[in-house]
Amino acid sequence: MTSNELNFRPLFEPRGVAVVGASPKPSLAKNILNNIVSSGYDGNVAAVNSNYSKVDDVNCYKCILDVPFHVDLAVLCVRAESILPILEECKRKAVGVAQIISSGFSELDSLEGHARQQQILRWANESATTIVVGPNTFGVMNLHRPIIAVGENRIPRTIAGGVSGVFQSGQMVAMIHPLIGRGVGISKVVTTGNEINVTSAEIIHFLAADPQTEVIVSYSEGIKNVELFAAACARAREQRKPIIMLRVGAHPEVRMGISRHTATQASNCYEWDIRFLKELGVITVDSTEDLIETVVAFNAIRRPRGNRIAFVSFSGGMGNIMADLILSARGMKLARFSEPLRKRLRDILPRFANSFNPLDLSAQSAFDTEGLNSCMRVLGESGEFDILLWGKDLPMTIDDGSPVGLALKELTIQHPEIVIIPVSQMNGVSGGHQLDGSPPMFAGRPLLQGTAISIRAMDKVIEWHAST
Amino acid sequence: MTSNELNFRPLFEPRGVAVVGASPKPSLAKNILNNIVSSGYDGNVAAVNSNYSKVDDVNCYKCILDVPFHVDLAVLCVRAESILPILEECKRKAVGVAQIISSGFSELDSLEGHARQQQILRWANESATTIVVGPNTFGVMNLHRPIIAVGENRIPRTIAGGVSGVFQSGQMVAMIHPLIGRGVGISKVVTTGNEINVTSAEIIHFLAADPQTEVIVSYSEGIKNVELFAAACARAREQRKPIIMLRVGAHPEVRMGISRHTATQASNCYEWDIRFLKELGVITVDSTEDLIETVVAFNAIRRPRGNRIAFVSFSGGMGNIMADLILSARGMKLARFSEPLRKRLRDILPRFANSFNPLDLSAQSAFDTEGLNSCMRVLGESGEFDILLWGKDLPMTIDDGSPVGLALKELTIQHPEIVIIPVSQMNGVSGGHQLDGSPPMFAGRPLLQGTAISIRAMDKVIEWHAST
Repeated sequence: MTSNELNFRPLFEPRGVAVVGASPKPSLAKNILNNIVSSGYDGNVAAVNSNYSKVDDVNCYKCILDVPFHVDLAVLCVRAESILPILEECKRKAVGVAQIISSGFSELDSLEGHARQQQILRWANESATTIVVGPNTFGVMNLHRPIIAVGENRIPRTIAGGVSGVFQSGQMVAMIHPLIGRGVGISKVVTTGNEINVTSAEIIHFLAADPQTEVIVSYSEGIKNVELFAAACARAREQRKPIIMLRVGAHPEVRMGISRHTATQASNCYEWDIRFLKELGVITVDSTEDLIETVVAFNAIRRPRGNRIAFVSFSGGMGNIMADLILSARGMKLARFSEPLRKRLRDILPRFANSFNPLDLSAQSAFDTEGLNSCMRVLGESGEFDILLWGKDLPMTIDDGSPVGLALKELTIQHPEIVIIPVSQMNGVSGGHQLDGSPPMFAGRPLLQGTAISIRAMDKVIEWHAST
Repeated sequence: MTSNELNFRPLFEPRGVAVVGASPKPSLAKNILNNIVSSGYDGNVAAVNSNYSKVDDVNCYKCILDVPFHVDLAVLCVRAESILPILEECKRKAVGVAQIISSGFSELDSLEGHARQQQILRWANESATTIVVGPNTFGVMNLHRPIIAVGENRIPRTIAGGVSGVFQSGQMVAMIHPLIGRGVGISKVVTTGNEINVTSAEIIHFLAADPQTEVIVSYSEGIKNVELFAAACARAREQRKPIIMLRVGAHPEVRMGISRHTATQASNCYEWDIRFLKELGVITVDSTEDLIETVVAFNAIRRPRGNRIAFVSFSGGMGNIMADLILSARGMKLARFSEPLRKRLRDILPRFANSFNPLDLSAQSAFDTEGLNSCMRVLGESGEFDILLWGKDLPMTIDDGSPVGLALKELTIQHPEIVIIPVSQMNGVSGGHQLDGSPPMFAGRPLLQGTAISIRAMDKVIEWHAST
């Protein structure tokens, strides 16, 4: 175990947690304490606030030194000017990690704010005991522990899984909602804010070796520790873990905003960063919805043997939309069905609309069990494509007993070499879930949703697999 | 009333409907019949099929001539080769519109299919009584009647509203699901398929004058009747109704697919069409999700007085993402807050993170009623922007009694000249709805969802308002 792993164990697997600044009043600190308790955290937990002896059902102490158990993780939610003395107390108590939620540092763009951040930075550089995460963050979570110590007040029923996130902005924690809604499990999430001591690079370095992490998602305002970042990316690549990053700062005005938000000076090197990220194999996107869909796509698509796509559906219209998009994508090919395959399709399915790719089986075929089975058998035997995209109208689960469900299941069994991915034309449909609230899946993997957004996400996954 | 309006009255407001080919077995015809009955249609309805005297609870007749009431709309779901004799019967019974669901015409790319389509075309051209919609369609609906006569088997609880659709592909009917889920009401939807007689142009011409239609959505594989289409667009423009179109066929391979799908020959003129559409003021998109979000944006955004955007939220990260996107948009400006405004913001909200646009109020401000009210008052009085984008993490309704809800409501009352639009960073969140299942709204208008997709949709709405 490297010092990196040792360092971050108290952050992700704390045996004791203290929330400094929690009170019964509505606040981020209160949300964090609530989340820790309601997440089923089985370690010791305390509030620290000189005005109370209890916050809800949690014991509250005057100062962190009074907490009667070892504290691995101290979450600091007090005014910026009170941080330094509390860090001193953390040091005396041998706290492993202090995560500073408070803002009021360099992001203020005031002399006072900069001075305060410099003080904390000096303190952190000299500290041999306590690592500082932040300031200006939103907390941390590890669903495998489990511990949820973030400032959000509506954490949903969560699934432990393989997606970990390192976000320089707190609100990105909300990304767990759409991921959970799509059937994608979460591992660890940490928000890093101003990154004065611990940078995204160090977290990625940790996550690259974390056995519970399969995919790393990141929101970045600029790379602070370039060498460590490159080493972290190389380590993730070795471990075959994709890093998907939303990197802001394309415009000079936004780079000014970044210096005010997390005081990231490296933000000036946006163009250089983007080239650098590409060289390192980091997958970049420019919107939250692309970030979500790319993560879903990595969950939906196992490594394909190639990039030839067959698109099959009951809709000629969706076929045309998807074909336009596939043909515009960089890493994908629309398979060209051979004459013999087309002849076999025509012979077996005489009343179907056509025998080309995209294959439009026409709406009436949804009721034709035999026709669908024959069609999938012929397609599977052809060896003319690597990925079968099954186009649906809505993001609903394909009923196991339906003609389509049966035909796709049989194809999965007969031709494990083919990657089968259902994709729905419409996205954002709230009634798309099963009655029991579970997300629509096929063969244990999530469905893709939307047209251009699904193709962009698939393209990134296929390119990534081809390059690793 | 023009002949156009007279012609389409039987399609959208039929007094009697017959579904030819319906049987108790699962099929599109059965779905259509079920939908008509369960939609609460109060006109006469009959099935036509020589093998049954009842289909479920609906009377079934041997032939359309036996139907004992006047039939405005006959929905034909029989094999392609049986269509012509049934059209003859429709003529004898003075049926207003025959919508042909059946495929098996030119889209087959066979001599037989072409010959069949030519026959129908000749018949339609000579018919003085019966208009032919299709073939190769999925049906029609009018929620103001109400009548739902489409082949889909999962029509949700529907809201009558102002969005009408004309789709050359049946599966696009599924678009009503995400729109309804977003709180957007539907007026009329018709699928036109091969468009041998009635083209999208004629339907748009009708909808442009329809008092229950405010926005027209279209999926098009090519413009068949260029002159009428231009006239229809001009009429829609006069009536200040946007036309939003997903036009496929960017790639030659897809244009070949189009000729197989709806046999649209005009598909060869994609580049010409796109230029032509732009000149006519038609808003084009290339994905289903952009089509949906643009419609939602037209519902969310009333005509703004200008294009200066202020972005305000509790998240510096979302501010940076949105600023990058706004600065890349064509028709929008990121308002530059003046020094006096910034000073007022700093004085009133001393602990807030910054006074620039995008304005990051920092997460803790969510609990600060007074601060939020002051901030909104100062912003409202400034006159320095036209649209206030309120950034949220998730697509949830803003609680009326929350500090943000109160502050935004007050701003709406004090400054009706400002357009206020909440937009959520995350999209596709299934738990985003209220407990009663209603969609998240603000001041009676839907929220936008997603980052790049919301900005693209807003940009189209702002450009459209500026040009009309």
